[in-house]
Amino acid sequence: MSANTFGEIFRVTTFGESHGAAVGVVIDGCPPLLEISEEFIASELRRRRPGQSVLTTQRNEQDEFEILSGIFEGKTTGAPIAIIIRNKDHKSADYESLKDIYRPSHADYTYQKKYGIRDYRGGGRTSARETIARVIAGAISKLYLQKKGISVQAYVSQVLNIKTDKTYKELDLTKTEQSSIRCPDKIISDKMEELILSVQESGDSVGGVISCVIKGVPVGLGEPVFDKLHADLGKAMLSINACKGFDIGSGFESITMKGSEHNDEFVVENDVIHTKTNFSGGVQGGISNGEDIYFRCAFKPVSSIKLEQNTVGKNLQNVQLNISGRHDACVLPRAVPIVEAMASIVLMDHYLRSFEPISADNQ
Amino acid sequence: MSANTFGEIFRVTTFGESHGAAVGVVIDGCPPLLEISEEFIASELRRRRPGQSVLTTQRNEQDEFEILSGIFEGKTTGAPIAIIIRNKDHKSADYESLKDIYRPSHADYTYQKKYGIRDYRGGGRTSARETIARVIAGAISKLYLQKKGISVQAYVSQVLNIKTDKTYKELDLTKTEQSSIRCPDKIISDKMEELILSVQESGDSVGGVISCVIKGVPVGLGEPVFDKLHADLGKAMLSINACKGFDIGSGFESITMKGSEHNDEFVVENDVIHTKTNFSGGVQGGISNGEDIYFRCAFKPVSSIKLEQNTVGKNLQNVQLNISGRHDACVLPRAVPIVEAMASIVLMDHYLRSFEPISADNQ
Amino acid sequence: MSANTFGEIFRVTTFGESHGAAVGVVIDGCPPLLEISEEFIASELRRRRPGQSVLTTQRNEQDEFEILSGIFEGKTTGAPIAIIIRNKDHKSADYESLKDIYRPSHADYTYQKKYGIRDYRGGGRTSARETIARVIAGAISKLYLQKKGISVQAYVSQVLNIKTDKTYKELDLTKTEQSSIRCPDKIISDKMEELILSVQESGDSVGGVISCVIKGVPVGLGEPVFDKLHADLGKAMLSINACKGFDIGSGFESITMKGSEHNDEFVVENDVIHTKTNFSGGVQGGISNGEDIYFRCAFKPVSSIKLEQNTVGKNLQNVQLNISGRHDACVLPRAVPIVEAMASIVLMDHYLRSFEPISADNQ
Amino acid sequence: MSANTFGEIFRVTTFGESHGAAVGVVIDGCPPLLEISEEFIASELRRRRPGQSVLTTQRNEQDEFEILSGIFEGKTTGAPIAIIIRNKDHKSADYESLKDIYRPSHADYTYQKKYGIRDYRGGGRTSARETIARVIAGAISKLYLQKKGISVQAYVSQVLNIKTDKTYKELDLTKTEQSSIRCPDKIISDKMEELILSVQESGDSVGGVISCVIKGVPVGLGEPVFDKLHADLGKAMLSINACKGFDIGSGFESITMKGSEHNDEFVVENDVIHTKTNFSGGVQGGISNGEDIYFRCAFKPVSSIKLEQNTVGKNLQNVQLNISGRHDACVLPRAVPIVEAMASIVLMDHYLRSFEPISADNQ
Repeated sequence: MSANTFGEIFRVTTFGESHGAAVGVVIDGCPPLLEISEEFIASELRRRRPGQSVLTTQRNEQDEFEILSGIFEGKTTGAPIAIIIRNKDHKSADYESLKDIYRPSHADYTYQKKYGIRDYRGGGRTSARETIARVIAGAISKLYLQKKGISVQAYVSQVLNIKTDKTYKELDLTKTEQSSIRCPDKIISDKMEELILSVQESGDSVGGVISCVIKGVPVGLGEPVFDKLHADLGKAMLSINACKGFDIGSGFESITMKGSEHNDEFVVENDVIHTKTNFSGGVQGGISNGEDIYFRCAFKPVSSIKLEQNTVGKNLQNVQLNISGRHDACVLPRAVPIVEAMASIVLMDHYLRSFEPISADNQ
Repeated sequence: MSANTFGEIFRVTTFGESHGAAVGVVIDGCPPLLEISEEFIASELRRRRPGQSVLTTQRNEQDEFEILSGIFEGKTTGAPIAIIIRNKDHKSADYESLKDIYRPSHADYTYQKKYGIRDYRGGGRTSARETIARVIAGAISKLYLQKKGISVQAYVSQVLNIKTDKTYKELDLTKTEQSSIRCPDKIISDKMEELILSVQESGDSVGGVISCVIKGVPVGLGEPVFDKLHADLGKAMLSINACKGFDIGSGFESITMKGSEHNDEFVVENDVIHTKTNFSGGVQGGISNGEDIYFRCAFKPVSSIKLEQNTVGKNLQNVQLNISGRHDACVLPRAVPIVEAMASIVLMDHYLRSFEPISADNQ
Repeated sequence: MSANTFGEIFRVTTFGESHGAAVGVVIDGCPPLLEISEEFIASELRRRRPGQSVLTTQRNEQDEFEILSGIFEGKTTGAPIAIIIRNKDHKSADYESLKDIYRPSHADYTYQKKYGIRDYRGGGRTSARETIARVIAGAISKLYLQKKGISVQAYVSQVLNIKTDKTYKELDLTKTEQSSIRCPDKIISDKMEELILSVQESGDSVGGVISCVIKGVPVGLGEPVFDKLHADLGKAMLSINACKGFDIGSGFESITMKGSEHNDEFVVENDVIHTKTNFSGGVQGGISNGEDIYFRCAFKPVSSIKLEQNTVGKNLQNVQLNISGRHDACVLPRAVPIVEAMASIVLMDHYLRSFEPISADNQ
Repeated sequence: MSANTFGEIFRVTTFGESHGAAVGVVIDGCPPLLEISEEFIASELRRRRPGQSVLTTQRNEQDEFEILSGIFEGKTTGAPIAIIIRNKDHKSADYESLKDIYRPSHADYTYQKKYGIRDYRGGGRTSARETIARVIAGAISKLYLQKKGISVQAYVSQVLNIKTDKTYKELDLTKTEQSSIRCPDKIISDKMEELILSVQESGDSVGGVISCVIKGVPVGLGEPVFDKLHADLGKAMLSINACKGFDIGSGFESITMKGSEHNDEFVVENDVIHTKTNFSGGVQGGISNGEDIYFRCAFKPVSSIKLEQNTVGKNLQNVQLNISGRHDACVLPRAVPIVEAMASIVLMDHYLRSFEPISADNQ
């Protein structure tokens, strides 16, 4: 019943507040003998880090991680893997003024009411720094999935009203990292960049859509009733800060199709069963069918804006809020590795549930 | 890790195949001393049952349930509640011809590959009869939530391209049950009915959107990181057959708003903190903030159609499929009580996680 | 957090009260394609049933079980298996007088205080009838373990002060079922029988020890820290009514040995590593080492006796209690199959955790 | 399914190897607003630490812990609490010679076979250093239980054949800490000390019994079927390294009593129901009845001895083993705080399951 743990076999527990000593992750249930590339973990963390471009906040976070346990001579041992990153950029005093104020659309109010106490500094537990832990766990699961031929790739497909009309099949996803927005459609990416810079200047914020594609998934991942593969992917995505919607395959667009158009005809190609179309998004009855899995996540505009806002405080007083400081006008580029991380965690967990228990004989 | 169990404290386990002896549910973790109205359970089951109107299948399912345990002298005892409904309408021979055929967009293929065996009769475990168990558990959770002043109401807001433009606040939700489509907007409901009848005649199927509103939720339900209230609602909805998308509050529409428009300003009304707008959909940082919770579920057109389809079989042979028999052209009216049931289960579970453990002293 | 569920992958949920409609079990996580012998389940149930000999209660319970789901054409399908047994021998009126009385060393008082309500008829949820569900699940796990070459055999090794001095290796465990006491040591068994008959006549009760041996276990079952194999076995045994103690291998007798005597020297036999002695009881560091696993369970004398007892009632009144009716003076013979069932469930669960996930490819 | 996590609501996850960077614990589910005394945590750790007396190993472990998260201004916040202790005394080279050797009655062999890899330095994950994490979590749960009037006290009641004949009621448990053996019976303690010194000198080891008493427990803790309070206590104790047996109340001694002697007569004292005797050990039907809970744990002699032993290695070679270095001849004095820690964790977890969910309103 642990609220800070995700997964059933590959179990990821995150801890840490923005201005506490450290954020970290404990991963229990990783099979032994998996080679861990520290450079790969570092590269995934760099993708999440602020200050990567003019579009993201300029904090110089180093995000140097330390492996505390579970890895021996470069390989997992089957013991729990604990990894931490210390918080360096402490200016807690900056936040003193926000101590008793509930910022609009933040979690200040709900935390205060739920717990009667909160670490208000930098968002505390609700800070996006918590996602560092997810990215680390995601990196480890990506290393595992790679060995199984499974890849997870996300990209920004829409910001406000700027949107690529291309499907993931029409895009060259290897271009994603070349775009500061992580949109592989160059023309659209440029427009998005322009938009975000202008929004940033105005002190406002924008949201958008992150699309994600998972390739190489074998038939049979996912559980039939409650733990359907797409239900677990949906939960994983909706657990990311600012994510307000999820759909898989044809998703919300399936509404305007009839069954005769929408049904995915089975065909045989090279002695393997495939579907001619893939409106199902690679999942049927909650179980992967071997086709590409693709889904979308809707991200609201971030709550932190520099424009003056009305709100109230702990003592029910009216407050006029002016937040200075560093905030992304659009978090989507940095959310791309987080979407990939959570998707990888879900896939690895279901892989282990379906095909490989955790012991050396199965490596 | 039980794939057939949902919930952490209020735990709902379903079992049963369409053409086995019975379908049923075990509910563990229901607090003692809750009065159980069998008539209420029966009325919820009637809402789900086929044959309610010309729009739904004409099977004369009785759905008479039997309480096997956990209820004594009309009250829960804290012991697990087991309830079953026998399957009566067995015509397994009808399904013999489908034994080795993979119907498009059904789970036949994925089940066969995952398990190497499946009860192919009437969809077996993947049949919508499984949702009987969910509706029973949902009824019990509704009885609990009623005592806490929480109501859960769903309705059909879109079928194919026919859609009510009214928000839930503009609709009179007490009219939902008067509509054969369970759309409380009379004019739209009539149009939907007309559409569905015509689709049914053509042997095709259509999907749509079910919207749901939860009122009376106290501040503090939901867990901050992975088990966010809306993440669990999303998983619950996506676990319903044919549901392909979920969003909460402004959801996918938040994309086209800026932060300054989207942020929900806090205000004080009668000494209680509220938000002026409710784009958050009643959940902030994963925790309920006391406002109405509202969300949408996208349902694809059902896979069972009467039109001829191409597909393949177990031995990779090509098959031309013609399915006669009884199928809803649109499942949405019958999915309304299922959406309510799953939402109620999520709310009750989070209520117990947050406010009331299971013992007599807390009743 | 389900109090009525045991196991992590092979998950056994029991439900039902003594005088409700039925007792039953839902088993989730059984691999598909396991052949289920109904006759074997029936034979295991007969071993648990009262009225097997003069020594056990003479209720004519039929214990006819009904499979509701999860088994198709004689094989498991991977879907949850639900099995029930109806309660037939209702004489609830017999229990009316016990409604407000707390029987000594029973759970009447603790249930009433915990839940504020209880089905007092025949012990309700605390009745030994609940173990029917365990025996059914145990039978299915035995069928699974047999395929893996693992056997689980329990027997009565002590009743009051009558005790076999032979170790399990010195006994012929195939003789267990020939003894009405399920003690394979004929001379001791006869003495035990004589003792129990005399205790029964006096209206009193006695307890004793059940020993259990598990053979054919591969190296590697059990998890190293909290879910040590013997810790889970211990919990399983202590969850059986009247079991007050558990030890594995040398157990409580290890206390009087020195390390140099107690350490199990490793040796190589036929190119396989074994231990010369087996004080560890087949488990080292919580993980099976391939040697026989053996353990003991201490059962207290049952609380139901016919002798007059002083106690108190719900309104704090003093009560003189005289219970007539049918009660075993010694439950141990009937507890033998329950010990085996719980041990088998633990072993199968850990087998699945360590070696075989649940999908067809692994059968 | 996390093997390194214990508890359902108060969830304790431990990580770390003896010679890795650190050992640590993540505690999820601790209610907010609990005041945390760092000095108390430190004092509990000192009790576990080696080098406390001539009887325990002379490593100068500092065991300085660092709180990484979950505590703000001296109070818990409801967020996960992560605490680590760095490993300082690295002399990994000492262990190089043991790399491919299986020490008798250690977990070297079972780990190697299960995982195909192990951190062999200082026992790695199987080292008693892991219990540091348990003691920290135990300290926090003790602080919680204190507020509820619940105390947990353990002591050494037997070493080899030296045993106190006094029951816990006849002993002054405040004297426990004054004894280097943690036996509050002064005369027996002195004899034990003498024995252990002599055993140590001979290079051998001894085990014994730790007894534990829990006072002030309200009626109603524990779940009736599988998660019986004493079943969870049993599992907790058996998960401690070297613990081979557990019994509660009369336990293994109940065997030689008849029901009429063993039944605990209910009586009324000051308008509260009590039992005249307490052979049940404070638990009836798996639920606490308000009387003292007391239980025993059997600890085998530790496997690490200095005497020469025969064993085998990874390549099936015969090995003559001579281990120098620092080892306790008797771990029981240091295991006392671990027994208390695990018992406290179980009690707090069941308290939260029964009486207090995790939110500020319930503080």
